[in-house]
Amino acid sequence: MHAIGIDIGGTKIAGALVSENGEIIAEDRQPTPAGDAAHIVDIVSSMITRLQAGHEVVAAGVAAAGFVDAGQSTVYYAPNIDWRNEPLQRYISERVSLPITVDNDANAAGWAEFRFGAGRLLTDMTMLTIGTGVGGAIVTQGRLFRGGFGAGAELGHLRVVPDGLPCGCGARGCIEQYGSGRALLRMANGIADAGGIGLALADARSRHGELNGTIVGEMIAAGDPGAVNALQELGRWLGQACASLAAVLDPQVFVFGGGVSVAGDLLLDPIRESFLQHLPARGYHPEPGFVIAELVNDAGVVGAADLARIHAGRR
Amino acid sequence: MHAIGIDIGGTKIAGALVSENGEIIAEDRQPTPAGDAAHIVDIVSSMITRLQAGHEVVAAGVAAAGFVDAGQSTVYYAPNIDWRNEPLQRYISERVSLPITVDNDANAAGWAEFRFGAGRLLTDMTMLTIGTGVGGAIVTQGRLFRGGFGAGAELGHLRVVPDGLPCGCGARGCIEQYGSGRALLRMANGIADAGGIGLALADARSRHGELNGTIVGEMIAAGDPGAVNALQELGRWLGQACASLAAVLDPQVFVFGGGVSVAGDLLLDPIRESFLQHLPARGYHPEPGFVIAELVNDAGVVGAADLARIHAGRR
Amino acid sequence: MHAIGIDIGGTKIAGALVSENGEIIAEDRQPTPAGDAAHIVDIVSSMITRLQAGHEVVAAGVAAAGFVDAGQSTVYYAPNIDWRNEPLQRYISERVSLPITVDNDANAAGWAEFRFGAGRLLTDMTMLTIGTGVGGAIVTQGRLFRGGFGAGAELGHLRVVPDGLPCGCGARGCIEQYGSGRALLRMANGIADAGGIGLALADARSRHGELNGTIVGEMIAAGDPGAVNALQELGRWLGQACASLAAVLDPQVFVFGGGVSVAGDLLLDPIRESFLQHLPARGYHPEPGFVIAELVNDAGVVGAADLARIHAGRR
Amino acid sequence: MHAIGIDIGGTKIAGALVSENGEIIAEDRQPTPAGDAAHIVDIVSSMITRLQAGHEVVAAGVAAAGFVDAGQSTVYYAPNIDWRNEPLQRYISERVSLPITVDNDANAAGWAEFRFGAGRLLTDMTMLTIGTGVGGAIVTQGRLFRGGFGAGAELGHLRVVPDGLPCGCGARGCIEQYGSGRALLRMANGIADAGGIGLALADARSRHGELNGTIVGEMIAAGDPGAVNALQELGRWLGQACASLAAVLDPQVFVFGGGVSVAGDLLLDPIRESFLQHLPARGYHPEPGFVIAELVNDAGVVGAADLARIHAGRR
Repeated sequence: MHAIGIDIGGTKIAGALVSENGEIIAEDRQPTPAGDAAHIVDIVSSMITRLQAGHEVVAAGVAAAGFVDAGQSTVYYAPNIDWRNEPLQRYISERVSLPITVDNDANAAGWAEFRFGAGRLLTDMTMLTIGTGVGGAIVTQGRLFRGGFGAGAELGHLRVVPDGLPCGCGARGCIEQYGSGRALLRMANGIADAGGIGLALADARSRHGELNGTIVGEMIAAGDPGAVNALQELGRWLGQACASLAAVLDPQVFVFGGGVSVAGDLLLDPIRESFLQHLPARGYHPEPGFVIAELVNDAGVVGAADLARIHAGRR
Repeated sequence: MHAIGIDIGGTKIAGALVSENGEIIAEDRQPTPAGDAAHIVDIVSSMITRLQAGHEVVAAGVAAAGFVDAGQSTVYYAPNIDWRNEPLQRYISERVSLPITVDNDANAAGWAEFRFGAGRLLTDMTMLTIGTGVGGAIVTQGRLFRGGFGAGAELGHLRVVPDGLPCGCGARGCIEQYGSGRALLRMANGIADAGGIGLALADARSRHGELNGTIVGEMIAAGDPGAVNALQELGRWLGQACASLAAVLDPQVFVFGGGVSVAGDLLLDPIRESFLQHLPARGYHPEPGFVIAELVNDAGVVGAADLARIHAGRR
Repeated sequence: MHAIGIDIGGTKIAGALVSENGEIIAEDRQPTPAGDAAHIVDIVSSMITRLQAGHEVVAAGVAAAGFVDAGQSTVYYAPNIDWRNEPLQRYISERVSLPITVDNDANAAGWAEFRFGAGRLLTDMTMLTIGTGVGGAIVTQGRLFRGGFGAGAELGHLRVVPDGLPCGCGARGCIEQYGSGRALLRMANGIADAGGIGLALADARSRHGELNGTIVGEMIAAGDPGAVNALQELGRWLGQACASLAAVLDPQVFVFGGGVSVAGDLLLDPIRESFLQHLPARGYHPEPGFVIAELVNDAGVVGAADLARIHAGRR
Repeated sequence: MHAIGIDIGGTKIAGALVSENGEIIAEDRQPTPAGDAAHIVDIVSSMITRLQAGHEVVAAGVAAAGFVDAGQSTVYYAPNIDWRNEPLQRYISERVSLPITVDNDANAAGWAEFRFGAGRLLTDMTMLTIGTGVGGAIVTQGRLFRGGFGAGAELGHLRVVPDGLPCGCGARGCIEQYGSGRALLRMANGIADAGGIGLALADARSRHGELNGTIVGEMIAAGDPGAVNALQELGRWLGQACASLAAVLDPQVFVFGGGVSVAGDLLLDPIRESFLQHLPARGYHPEPGFVIAELVNDAGVVGAADLARIHAGRR
């Protein structure tokens, strides 16, 4: 039977009716009315009702950035949409006739990759979502790892530099500041300031007013040496973080999703090289794979739907 | 029904017959013939046979330092006893009439704490064993976390300093070099060299030829300001590592075992304080507890026995 | 007999007819059509033809930023005008009736200083050209040092800080990022942000929209304490680089050219002081001189002409 | 015609009669009476007289550690044998009937490699001699590079870390402190302190009282992971230094001599890997070769003899 997945992002709310095999049967999309929790609940509820119409649906899962409690019902803290302790599960349940579960969006995306994408033949996977920030998901022995309070797998906040760059989480030196899309822009700006291989970046910056992810991404794709150099620096930091994560989590594969991951091998190569240089007990520790996520755009809704189905006991 | 647990340490091999409630019914102990794998197999096999005599025993579990494969049968690499790819499970199975499983010793100790000690009322626990090195164990949703290749939870090799002190694992900057008993001695020696609060340490060092864990431990217990200062430095590093681990693992409790943990609150206080200073999303991330392990001496054998019982399907 | 020198800069192409004594007999100047290699070849060829008319000319030398092959014919890589592997010598030879050689522009400028300027009485000289970037030239035993592949004397890419600021060359921590005109602007902006001695810089910045080399240069000449402080920081970095270079190259004199060198002793004093602080084996290593280049504006064309004359075997 | 080469080392004085093809016809060896300059002159003079007897000999060259003046006659400063401003050329000339020249020992060894060893088919070579310290030699366009005062090519004193480890030369952060045999021992001791892969080093250290080059060298040859790890760290530093040197000197090949170089590819592999990571303008800069010296033991005497023959105008 089908399930519904909803992914509340910073700019849009995406919804989909998803089959047991992870296929999208129908979808919907609305802009996010940021900061207006009640309005978001309305949009999500009517989106679920619309997607459900005329189908047998077993459950609906809602994914959002932020901490979700271990009971999968309350959003403690969602930085992008300014939520604090919102009992989202209850609010939506009052408006629709389906079992509702709430999950962290990176967990939903990771789960989708594990079930239907890059991790589908394995049991233990670690995923890093390289978007504006760095999200994480952990699957172990075929189960999503949520942590004791539901706040685990916040892999973007692994510290890589003591007293390093300040992070939006209030700590310092988190890998999010060295391995995210935002970090890539900081590195690209540094290279633009340096002349030489940075001249094309500097030129693009003055033509467009400032660099953004689209511009830098296109320059990476076109092989601009400055933009590729910034991506390599990003990759080396991610490889170092993965070396620490391998000591803790020992996944069979690291999967990289999010907007930056479209760079493919240009991103994976420096990650892998730096990983091997920093891997504890290299030569004794089995080496994981490094791959790009396969479901980039739909991962959130597909994963949220599947997690809701599992929570409802139908898989 | 009872199970047998064996813990192969660097200096001694301990064995015990353990009840379903974690009680020790009988025990045995032999010196470790380091480097002589065949001899170790003989000692372990006859120890199991002796402990088994006259009891109904369901299985025997053997714990050793090092990487153990995901099938719980082969020791990839045991640094202290110089093993490489030893099929320990097979060797012992050929000599005894019980199902045999092999496990990492920190995992066994952690599992014992989870089942019968400091973690017994919870579902998610992270344990750090602070001995000569730093061992780790992770329990999530009531299950031991082993990783995709059986080499997970090597928490001593989380990196805390890029290009930091060289580590026995071949990498650099691992928490083992900042949070272990060996690190405590390095810190105590540094304070002894510095005069002032280090004068009593310097004095002890010249009386005994060199500082060791027993001397420094006694001086900590006696409140010597230099020795306590070294312990606080150690605690602050451990607290920083726990802040990174909380972002990844989000345990309900951190448990500290191993010889250094007898320092109790003198160790826990700087850990907790430093943890809060470095915790990502402090104020939003639920705070775990920090406690000392309860089964210090018996944890290895009790855990190995219980894991063998589970593996044999009898719990 | 005369020779012709051409200097292809980022903004203009300069050409001169030069006597055997380094005197300029006639000159020409055109804007650089950046990025359009064919057009540059046209401009250079007709400039040579025009300068040659009515004179006996032995050869023409063309200088450009970037790597030139050891055979002095191909530009591997010219970052400012976006050239890759251009057989510049062949293109121009097809259009003019003179022997043509190609050289790196910093080498040409350095050679001119050695022959006719600050190094004329010596045998071993190291020159640093402090413009937007940092160029280099080495003369040893009266010969220009080109390196095994023609890519030597790239002194701006000596590393002074491991994992330091990203450089336009793709590496990090190069002296170009700490000792160039671009670095001077970065330092001046940092001081402008700091208040106190930076207030006049901050004021100039808000009046002009941003700081540039002309503004900062005028403020240095006028003795503004913030601008002079930035120059001193620059000088200290250059002095440290010279200490490393002295261990390798042991020149009799360091010559400083380029736009920033007009600051004269205000630049040389902190260089010399920092050099002595960091010189290996100070007290045993003979001390080189530190002087400002004498031919600042004409060095490129004069040197290119003289190198072409030597290559043609006429000196 | 033959020439004589003498190499005054810290522990022994070696002499040889050398053919024009670099073959050793006869040799001699005496212990060095350290600190006694007059006695050294006696030993060297009678060694030359003995080697000369019955042969036609064109000149004799004497090599010693330290700075030698550009006229190849005076030793400014020889740290190992405590010489200051010794007119060695004159002292020996008064006792023997041959033209005498004096040279730095690393220059002599480098020249031998260039003429008869690893650099014999090339024109531009940079050699690093990795012994207790780090020596250097530069050949460019087929000529030995001596610098303006004869004190060039002191490559061990290129700075790699600002405010780094103190160096015997009085400066800080020289590559000699990160890439020499002495540095290898420091790194090996650090790993011995770290447990794990350092256990065999720690064991060797307590058996022998302390680690020395022979012990660590044998452990590297036997593949001990701790000793190999120390060598890899050494190699990574040397690779970084070579990246800076390539920007300045652009050799066709880097040759590694001295005791540590017997490690062969175990040393070259991390050097090459780290070189490529740090090479300025990687992808545009032609890549040099990395090879081990071929004449390890005889390089000093063979090179000193050949340099004396050249100085005497007989080649």
